Amino acid sequence: MLRVGVVGFRGYSGAELVKILVRHRGVEPWLVEHRSDAAERPRPRGHRALPSLAANAEAVRAADLAVVFLATPAEVSMELAPTMLEAGARVIDLSGAFRLGQAETYRRWYREEHTQPELLAEAVYGLPEFYRERIRKARLVANPGCYPTAANLALRPLVESGIADRTAGFICDAKSGVSGAGRKPTLKTSFCEVSENFSAYSVLDHRHVPEVLQNAGLRESEFTFTAHLLPLDRGILETIYLRTRDGCSAERILGVYEERYQGEPFVRLYEPGTLPDLRCVQHTNYCDIGFRHDPSTGRAVIVSVIDNLVKGAAGQAVQNMNLMLGFEETEGLLCGC
Amino acid sequence: MLRVGVVGFRGYSGAELVKILVRHRGVEPWLVEHRSDAAERPRPRGHRALPSLAANAEAVRAADLAVVFLATPAEVSMELAPTMLEAGARVIDLSGAFRLGQAETYRRWYREEHTQPELLAEAVYGLPEFYRERIRKARLVANPGCYPTAANLALRPLVESGIADRTAGFICDAKSGVSGAGRKPTLKTSFCEVSENFSAYSVLDHRHVPEVLQNAGLRESEFTFTAHLLPLDRGILETIYLRTRDGCSAERILGVYEERYQGEPFVRLYEPGTLPDLRCVQHTNYCDIGFRHDPSTGRAVIVSVIDNLVKGAAGQAVQNMNLMLGFEETEGLLCGC
Amino acid sequence: MLRVGVVGFRGYSGAELVKILVRHRGVEPWLVEHRSDAAERPRPRGHRALPSLAANAEAVRAADLAVVFLATPAEVSMELAPTMLEAGARVIDLSGAFRLGQAETYRRWYREEHTQPELLAEAVYGLPEFYRERIRKARLVANPGCYPTAANLALRPLVESGIADRTAGFICDAKSGVSGAGRKPTLKTSFCEVSENFSAYSVLDHRHVPEVLQNAGLRESEFTFTAHLLPLDRGILETIYLRTRDGCSAERILGVYEERYQGEPFVRLYEPGTLPDLRCVQHTNYCDIGFRHDPSTGRAVIVSVIDNLVKGAAGQAVQNMNLMLGFEETEGLLCGC
Amino acid sequence: MLRVGVVGFRGYSGAELVKILVRHRGVEPWLVEHRSDAAERPRPRGHRALPSLAANAEAVRAADLAVVFLATPAEVSMELAPTMLEAGARVIDLSGAFRLGQAETYRRWYREEHTQPELLAEAVYGLPEFYRERIRKARLVANPGCYPTAANLALRPLVESGIADRTAGFICDAKSGVSGAGRKPTLKTSFCEVSENFSAYSVLDHRHVPEVLQNAGLRESEFTFTAHLLPLDRGILETIYLRTRDGCSAERILGVYEERYQGEPFVRLYEPGTLPDLRCVQHTNYCDIGFRHDPSTGRAVIVSVIDNLVKGAAGQAVQNMNLMLGFEETEGLLCGC
Repeated sequence: MLRVGVVGFRGYSGAELVKILVRHRGVEPWLVEHRSDAAERPRPRGHRALPSLAANAEAVRAADLAVVFLATPAEVSMELAPTMLEAGARVIDLSGAFRLGQAETYRRWYREEHTQPELLAEAVYGLPEFYRERIRKARLVANPGCYPTAANLALRPLVESGIADRTAGFICDAKSGVSGAGRKPTLKTSFCEVSENFSAYSVLDHRHVPEVLQNAGLRESEFTFTAHLLPLDRGILETIYLRTRDGCSAERILGVYEERYQGEPFVRLYEPGTLPDLRCVQHTNYCDIGFRHDPSTGRAVIVSVIDNLVKGAAGQAVQNMNLMLGFEETEGLLCGC
Repeated sequence: MLRVGVVGFRGYSGAELVKILVRHRGVEPWLVEHRSDAAERPRPRGHRALPSLAANAEAVRAADLAVVFLATPAEVSMELAPTMLEAGARVIDLSGAFRLGQAETYRRWYREEHTQPELLAEAVYGLPEFYRERIRKARLVANPGCYPTAANLALRPLVESGIADRTAGFICDAKSGVSGAGRKPTLKTSFCEVSENFSAYSVLDHRHVPEVLQNAGLRESEFTFTAHLLPLDRGILETIYLRTRDGCSAERILGVYEERYQGEPFVRLYEPGTLPDLRCVQHTNYCDIGFRHDPSTGRAVIVSVIDNLVKGAAGQAVQNMNLMLGFEETEGLLCGC
Repeated sequence: MLRVGVVGFRGYSGAELVKILVRHRGVEPWLVEHRSDAAERPRPRGHRALPSLAANAEAVRAADLAVVFLATPAEVSMELAPTMLEAGARVIDLSGAFRLGQAETYRRWYREEHTQPELLAEAVYGLPEFYRERIRKARLVANPGCYPTAANLALRPLVESGIADRTAGFICDAKSGVSGAGRKPTLKTSFCEVSENFSAYSVLDHRHVPEVLQNAGLRESEFTFTAHLLPLDRGILETIYLRTRDGCSAERILGVYEERYQGEPFVRLYEPGTLPDLRCVQHTNYCDIGFRHDPSTGRAVIVSVIDNLVKGAAGQAVQNMNLMLGFEETEGLLCGC
Repeated sequence: MLRVGVVGFRGYSGAELVKILVRHRGVEPWLVEHRSDAAERPRPRGHRALPSLAANAEAVRAADLAVVFLATPAEVSMELAPTMLEAGARVIDLSGAFRLGQAETYRRWYREEHTQPELLAEAVYGLPEFYRERIRKARLVANPGCYPTAANLALRPLVESGIADRTAGFICDAKSGVSGAGRKPTLKTSFCEVSENFSAYSVLDHRHVPEVLQNAGLRESEFTFTAHLLPLDRGILETIYLRTRDGCSAERILGVYEERYQGEPFVRLYEPGTLPDLRCVQHTNYCDIGFRHDPSTGRAVIVSVIDNLVKGAAGQAVQNMNLMLGFEETEGLLCGC
């Protein structure tokens, strides 16, 4: 059994990570204490806590952690990543700290300076469907954002295959459950503010946009993104609008997806005209993609759904770990998460 | 006090209508019994039921109803409208039966024959912001659909003013609460299917589309519409994507809206970059419109919100009644509905 | 128009208070700024803010406020009440600061020292159904807690009439929506912690217990109270268990309630065996009471429901103000709140 | 691999059962088609349906099903149980058909005639914590109701040990999520009726009462039960009130529970004063029990929580199957269900 550590295990992504790792047959999860502010939930008597250690290089080295997951805010990840690497662990970071190739892009979208620019070049973007081989050998993996995971998996095959008419642009109308905002209490995520409400936010200005541009190979003017907050716990549904080139058909779109995702364990397709909803993917590591196409006008509407805490965070992180440590890629991830 | 009748008072729109009419200082609401299948809710002792009558011409004539509201399915409205008109009442129909100008358009989108084609020519589309004078004199008003109300109020000024680039098309990504689907129990609207779920439906194929085309003056290929079901009771939020012509600015967009809606009691605008959410309009007759504009690319994202049961149904119906009967247009509609 | 002020107008009870006062035909509400930390919600252009003033004696005196509502935590109310009284305003306090007759009782249940013990003697408990005449003349009214309002109205007639068997005890199993916990963001009231969850709290130890004991005339050992948190915004439902004395019947119980609440504008009764739910009272100032009785064993189950923000806070506060200022008791409170 | 069949696999309990059985390492689940009315959910391409057969004796015999689960209404279970037994399968019935020992008790609480009275004597009540040995050998197991499972596990040790004061009675205030009402669409379980609402039902008259009386060994006059409908999908929380005999302490209560449930894989206890909530047990087969005790008055408040679809239905059914077929009792049930 290899030991792996989780920093930020009290947050929603971190807790989901621990839940998956406990089920994993090849690793032993350790809790890495960094800061402890969040309240504990009631625990039954006899509840056996996982082993824990402090978030410093000596402790990590002593515990011989093979991988450390950083389920922490970007600024904490920038601080801890070098420490963990130095201690000999490989790092999977769930924040946005290492997802963008250049410090300048980071500065623009995150509105703060990147403190570890030299690690940016080394970091591998952890979207296994597109970077599998590089992930296997990576020392530092930048686990993708939740919105970009659903968007990139839906968009990239259509862009790469050339069946989308890029001059018409791509619009992604994205809706997410509240857990995507993290566990820290804020007015914006208070029950009485969210329940029976629905709102748009970060219109034309979401920090996940550059991740999509960079990976789907689009220019900023070609990609419009709006985020919305759903009154539910977990799940992302993205409704994506684009135009296909002349002569395209639903069969052709399906064919492009099928060819691209053949053999992929965590991408599922639907018959043209059939659309997945959040229930199809909640508590799983799947990204489900359905669409409807109007051949007379070339309009296509794609629906892409994931569980933001699983394929959009912890599940994808474990998928990356499996690649890095040589496990079966689906280990720990097939059991209803 | 003028007497007015409500058919379908047990449904969600009908019940909202009764609630508003009870507060109205100029009319006395009567319940018009057509079919009674839905269960009653618990009532306190001493609860005084409203007066009621049967849905036939003699009863309506005898009660001397000035207006009859049909909060019924389209097929029932087609059956009852001639009866009520014949009995001397003016009719406000909340279904889709009389909204489309031509029987053929109805047949295509509603997938059934229109049984009263001669009334289609007479019916006035009940969107007061655009048809106020015709509504005053109408014998038969077709109260707009909930989705088209939010879409038309947001889109039409931009189309009419010519500031939208029509060649780029208009996309309306619409999300509605569950009450929009009516009170009849279905699996689709069961608590356990809707709660913690979110789904798209009627993609490129919603029967509300022709209402928008007809009123905003768009061609089918120019307007893309997707409906989604939100896990909440009431409210519609539409995120509308379009491109403005060269040289347009946020100030110009705001100016177009301001000019168009100056003096309108139920349309409210927001500062550019500020967006209303459902909470802004729930239980009110307002349609709130906000937007964000990117001058470098001309991309505009408009957010339009209404309460589907009020401005999207019962409130707008009372607004129409006020115009028809010569009351203050806001009577009964300013008190938190 | 008399001027009245609201301290704590950004909280849920305070905001509800402002909403009701704006509708009231005899007063003009002023916002009293004490501390301003909570985020503002989006507002339409042209939104006219209410007049405001600072929370000090001079400003209150200058504005000539007839009544000041304190929708503040108990410690802030203890600090502000003397100031407001000194400035010539009468005070309606929505916190627990002045509800308990003795400083010692306060110390025990609120676990802190009472800083204004001399005002405790003067404060009148603002439950109009039982203290109407004293409220009219009061300078300082302690608006009842939400749980005690529903409990006292259900229990007190049964205790006073002697039809309840006190030796069997009274159990109140209470469930409240989340707005009862206030607007300050906490983990406990975060959407992801509350949604799809349900929990008991303050078992045998809730600070609202002494309010019930004091007003219903019960000893601590006779009254068992448990609070629970419902995953919804507003509403309290209390299920109350007791045994009636030999020979009692459902008709007798109903008779006791009817006699006690005859003419009361805000207490409604149901036929024996019929029970109100939260929907019956949300957004209203009613307390609805239903019950079921088993004559063979004397077991009675009473269900008492209120909207915690209206009859449980802001609505009852306005009802008290109406009594104090000589308005019709129902003014501002009949319109769907 | 043994084959087992599920009748009613489209309902909520049946679907949960299939989900658990698919994970089980010793059985192969078959869908037994009885009536098919409910709509299908969207399925990804390549989705492999489970094998199915018709609900008649020949088909069941031909498929050689070791166990047939009846996740059907009581009247269907009474019809199918003899057929399945005759076909050589052992039966686990999730309805109320075979839970009560006598046809007369069934008639009184279910208000209809029992059509298979001779099977009542044979049926074993499937609460493994109390009937494990009998279950192993049973041909027909009556899987307990959801409410009685939580109530019996909390109450029976306190009754049997004699530490509860039976003269004071037992009150069970129970709250359940909506999935407990089944998947058939009804107005009562429609989203817009349940959401933001909360209600009591079946007060002093719930058909689950005799199950508790029979198993906890109580008389009807000693046990008061009220059911409530929570606006959430899954989970039951019961707040149970009782008095302990003189001299009892929290330690003594805990000791009684510990002794009774030592070694039980699916009952978990909490430190006195600490209470489990629904989140502790959702999607698991655990029953979690916590309590608070007031030694001065002997009042005890017990909180017992389960997931109504798992320990309250499908999970417990698989636990019973494991006993009947000689598997490890926890097989298929430890993995987050």
